[in-house]
Amino acid sequence: MDNSGGRRAGGRQWRFGPNDVLAGSATVSIREVLGRVMANIQEDGPRPVIPLGHGDPSVFPCFRTTPVAGDAVVSAVRSAKYNCYAPTIGVLPARCAIAEYLSLDLPYKLSPDDIFLTGGCTQAIEVIISVLSRPGANILLPRPGFPFYESRCAFSGLEVRHFNLVPERSWEVDLEAVEALADENTVAMVVINPGNPCGSVFTYQHLAKVAETASKLGIMVIADEVYDHLTFGENPFVPMGVFGEVVPVLTLGSISKRWVVPGWRLGWIAISDPNGVLKETKIVDGILNFLNISSDPATFIQGAIPHIIEFTKDDFFNKIIDLLRQTADMCYEKIKEIECITCPHKPEGSMFVMVKLNLSHLEDINDDVDLCHKLAKEESVIIAPGGREITRKIKTREEASISSNVF
Amino acid sequence: MDNSGGRRAGGRQWRFGPNDVLAGSATVSIREVLGRVMANIQEDGPRPVIPLGHGDPSVFPCFRTTPVAGDAVVSAVRSAKYNCYAPTIGVLPARCAIAEYLSLDLPYKLSPDDIFLTGGCTQAIEVIISVLSRPGANILLPRPGFPFYESRCAFSGLEVRHFNLVPERSWEVDLEAVEALADENTVAMVVINPGNPCGSVFTYQHLAKVAETASKLGIMVIADEVYDHLTFGENPFVPMGVFGEVVPVLTLGSISKRWVVPGWRLGWIAISDPNGVLKETKIVDGILNFLNISSDPATFIQGAIPHIIEFTKDDFFNKIIDLLRQTADMCYEKIKEIECITCPHKPEGSMFVMVKLNLSHLEDINDDVDLCHKLAKEESVIIAPGGREITRKIKTREEASISSNVF
Ligand SMILES: Cc1ncc(COP(=O)(O)O)c(C=O)c1O
Ligand SMILES: Cc1ncc(COP(=O)(O)O)c(C=O)c1O
Repeated sequence: MDNSGGRRAGGRQWRFGPNDVLAGSATVSIREVLGRVMANIQEDGPRPVIPLGHGDPSVFPCFRTTPVAGDAVVSAVRSAKYNCYAPTIGVLPARCAIAEYLSLDLPYKLSPDDIFLTGGCTQAIEVIISVLSRPGANILLPRPGFPFYESRCAFSGLEVRHFNLVPERSWEVDLEAVEALADENTVAMVVINPGNPCGSVFTYQHLAKVAETASKLGIMVIADEVYDHLTFGENPFVPMGVFGEVVPVLTLGSISKRWVVPGWRLGWIAISDPNGVLKETKIVDGILNFLNISSDPATFIQGAIPHIIEFTKDDFFNKIIDLLRQTADMCYEKIKEIECITCPHKPEGSMFVMVKLNLSHLEDINDDVDLCHKLAKEESVIIAPGGREITRKIKTREEASISSNVF
Repeated sequence: MDNSGGRRAGGRQWRFGPNDVLAGSATVSIREVLGRVMANIQEDGPRPVIPLGHGDPSVFPCFRTTPVAGDAVVSAVRSAKYNCYAPTIGVLPARCAIAEYLSLDLPYKLSPDDIFLTGGCTQAIEVIISVLSRPGANILLPRPGFPFYESRCAFSGLEVRHFNLVPERSWEVDLEAVEALADENTVAMVVINPGNPCGSVFTYQHLAKVAETASKLGIMVIADEVYDHLTFGENPFVPMGVFGEVVPVLTLGSISKRWVVPGWRLGWIAISDPNGVLKETKIVDGILNFLNISSDPATFIQGAIPHIIEFTKDDFFNKIIDLLRQTADMCYEKIKEIECITCPHKPEGSMFVMVKLNLSHLEDINDDVDLCHKLAKEESVIIAPGGREITRKIKTREEASISSNVF
């Protein structure tokens, strides 16, 4: 990459141009992919757009958040106590509330010093990928997965290696593949549970094996639990942090999904590591340093968190779960009636269903991306390609597949 | 930097460690520097802490934001229309409102497509530094300046070259130095106006010269106008975008300062470039790509922006300006009475005053950092070192100086 000479524009020579790494990072982003699908929507399409491409049911009235949450934000704004800059790690009462909230499901107690507030789980991922990116290092990501990880790794120059989730085994991690992929430069593996995009929920036993494998390899586990507690099948939600004694865990979460407010942009990183390995190895310092040079979630949303966590009723959570269960069931049954797609495993959590596409049953469709584009154009329905396009840049997948949310 | 082998912790070998670049980036951040000053505060100090270290008067009741702003946010929350994810560039009505707002002071009209919403001006800086960071490139930054630029450049590997602001010439840019520093790898120069930390406001004539110099060098101007309209001396605020025909300008701004709500985290990047150079040279694509892999400002704050901009009364702005003028005058007069410090130029805008320290009048004080630490410890007063510590890593400054806000 040569900078000298610059670019001609407006009939002149200018010395600047964009960082070339960015173009490659962004084209693997789900926002880019969905943007291209959306571009096919016709203004005079057959119906109002049915947006099933990403995890945001908040536009549907039945998924409206609890009034408790709105009230908490309104009184934080009205108090005028949160117009100021927040500390770079977040305001203390919010960190206390989140530490307590997460500790309910753990065999040890998190302290507020274990919690760092972020602009959604999105920024939590940005932080941790940036912190782990050292020259030569690599990270293990699930396939299918959440392509924002791939984007941030591409941007940071962190090498990505993919392990499969196995549809025949309820989308469990292929742990043999994990062992085969890891080498002395592997720093972490990512586990998304409940899963996006497969709708899977891992058992206690499977998570225990994940922890043992990671521990044996000397790598940490990044547990993306943005869909925490959103389970409606047989397996209850078990946080990866339960195994923090076995292997250091960085738990990523947010209020986006459980409270159905992804637009509020409040997430966290939790150090689920009672042995203090992440502190000793200076990963915690890295997080602090990165937050020192980053923007923060709005202070009054931070200020509302203790109230939101304390006063949200189980009724609200149960209603959301029931809705997700009903819609997932409906989706699963209807899919059975469609010849060209099959669903290898009934969704048990999060908001998604992953299906396999049988192209031989479809005319004039080249692959998953093509189907998504034509469905947008002809039916005004938005669904996401299953990852083929996204991982193409990194490694080609054999089968075409599509993912859709279930609501 | 060798990754292999990893680190011992908890009696074991682990393969991960933090990105080494981060430690260096964060120690030049103002948050880190202020954090170290604050660490000197004594619990049994002589008075409640007097926080004069950064641009946040929102804690003082007289600087409370207009009820218009709070009302707008409250009704955006209550509407439940903004719980969802926003488009990566921001919601359209907010981009329209900001385009109109900025166009009022320009000889051409900005379109909503020229506006990108960010998590405060902080994220706007992050975006643009990341986009401009190509191997070998360098950027020209003012000294004294706002050290967040240095931090982000260090993190992105963008080489920094400093030009001085000249105290004897109302802290104007030393344009000869700019010409001497620039070479074929220089991509941009940063102008902060109204100025942090010097309290300066540039004249139309000086900004015209800045534009001509940048144009001659083939570099863009990054105009940090986070303190836009906060002027109380002779020079009115002139946006750099006025010279967008001469040189492409990226204008960075936010509601943090003018509306005194830095905790709300809403800022923007505006493409002030009627000739379309930034589009042609793909800088705009770079911004879009980066925003695709970043978190966003809260959607309901975006939703509140049109109302905030349309309905905030001049009365409110005038009251804030009057307060800043009074406190700046008071500060300036009192400084005259203190032997060890002199103020080379009366503040005319923003929220800061920059003074020169005469160490020979002080006992037991080594430098500006030492003074700030001891003032925190002995007097519970927080002020910021003038940049010596911050720029030390990059280039040593001859004189010690301190900066303080004026309220
Ligand atoms: C697996 C996964 N991680 C992280 C995120 C980002 O969540 P947030 O809204 O908290 O930024 C999403 C959003 O869809 C997700 O599916
Ligand atoms: C010169 C300058 N630029 C940018 C910022 C960041 O502002 P924001 O609160 O909008 O992120 C500040 C904050 O003090 C500043 O002084």
